Amino acid sequence: MTVEDKLKELGVKLPPAAKPVANYVPSVRTGNLVFLSGHGPLKEDGTLITGKIGVDMTPEQGYEAARRTMIGLLGSLKAEIGDLDKVKRVVKLLGMVNCTSEFVDQPKVINGASDLLVDVFGDKGKHARSAVGMNALPLNISVEIEMIVEVED
Amino acid sequence: MTVEDKLKELGVKLPPAAKPVANYVPSVRTGNLVFLSGHGPLKEDGTLITGKIGVDMTPEQGYEAARRTMIGLLGSLKAEIGDLDKVKRVVKLLGMVNCTSEFVDQPKVINGASDLLVDVFGDKGKHARSAVGMNALPLNISVEIEMIVEVED
Amino acid sequence: MTVEDKLKELGVKLPPAAKPVANYVPSVRTGNLVFLSGHGPLKEDGTLITGKIGVDMTPEQGYEAARRTMIGLLGSLKAEIGDLDKVKRVVKLLGMVNCTSEFVDQPKVINGASDLLVDVFGDKGKHARSAVGMNALPLNISVEIEMIVEVED
Repeated sequence: MTVEDKLKELGVKLPPAAKPVANYVPSVRTGNLVFLSGHGPLKEDGTLITGKIGVDMTPEQGYEAARRTMIGLLGSLKAEIGDLDKVKRVVKLLGMVNCTSEFVDQPKVINGASDLLVDVFGDKGKHARSAVGMNALPLNISVEIEMIVEVED
Repeated sequence: MTVEDKLKELGVKLPPAAKPVANYVPSVRTGNLVFLSGHGPLKEDGTLITGKIGVDMTPEQGYEAARRTMIGLLGSLKAEIGDLDKVKRVVKLLGMVNCTSEFVDQPKVINGASDLLVDVFGDKGKHARSAVGMNALPLNISVEIEMIVEVED
Repeated sequence: MTVEDKLKELGVKLPPAAKPVANYVPSVRTGNLVFLSGHGPLKEDGTLITGKIGVDMTPEQGYEAARRTMIGLLGSLKAEIGDLDKVKRVVKLLGMVNCTSEFVDQPKVINGASDLLVDVFGDKGKHARSAVGMNALPLNISVEIEMIVEVED
């Protein structure tokens, strides 16, 4: 089963690559590693999911925001490498959660991204990660995630 | 003197690899680089060191927490590569300190991890790093550190 | 036109490599990648730019702080590789902005670093990046940026 088949089975529709509004790009490939920019959570209608977990949103809503963020990252990754079956290993996520200073369940939020990776890529999707709390993120997005992926030659 | 001898001399006992409780792993190797997940500070009895520096803890207690975090990272690294003498160079740390917005001595805290690296690995342990303040970390751990290490073929 | 010519044209004078005051180094090269430590904004007189964006400083002042931070990073990069014309591609920035929890214009601040990279290196300077808010940074510096650069053999 290809990655695209798996995404279809999961009902996941990838967006095109993120469109940075400044002097940077959604991803850079160096050797066999692709470094993806920090992405925020986009709804299917293209609007951002905003708000702080612990005040404006529940951890469950944060989980969904992290899942949407990963969908955007996969869209940018596909734009970079053409075919997601070229993914050899997801190496690392830095998952940043916009939250209050009392919130301590960042891992539960970032699981929304991690679970999707393993659902889509299986063992190749098992990655190293950090999940941390941020006092503020751009445009008040709820989650920002950056990712490193190893791809085939 | 092997790295294991050095650890023994320093009285450092490595734990087994961290056990993530979600869809991720303590480390991923890609080529000659090992990317280690964000680790928190574990006491010898396996419980977490928690609390914010500047409120619940002094910088000195933070230093000790960073040192304990590095011991955990080295445990996970050993599980990945088998033998710590295969370390060619510690490349980079991202050291994140759970603290108040007035706290400005993050470097003094993260030195607890950096000093141990240089004690153990000598010049090979001299790494690039960032030391920064976070408003919140998982389970209220005092420090979270992720690491990139170059290893031999 | 060499990178040094371009810097001269822009009126940018590079400082020597940053001098860490602990057991770490400004940069580590592994293979063709250079990992640069988190740098803060240094004025031309060598003093730090400090303060939180949203309280002590405007986003425009933050932009200038990010630009100064990138000048410091380029100074450390030059010390590592000798000649900035060996830069093959700027891979990734993590741009961290010292700010209040209400501040949401981190990208506008970090643009000060990104714009300089593209001014100096052209397409080779187009990088992946994350721009995020931090509740606290060392010595209350306004911005901290770390960078990964691909260099020629």
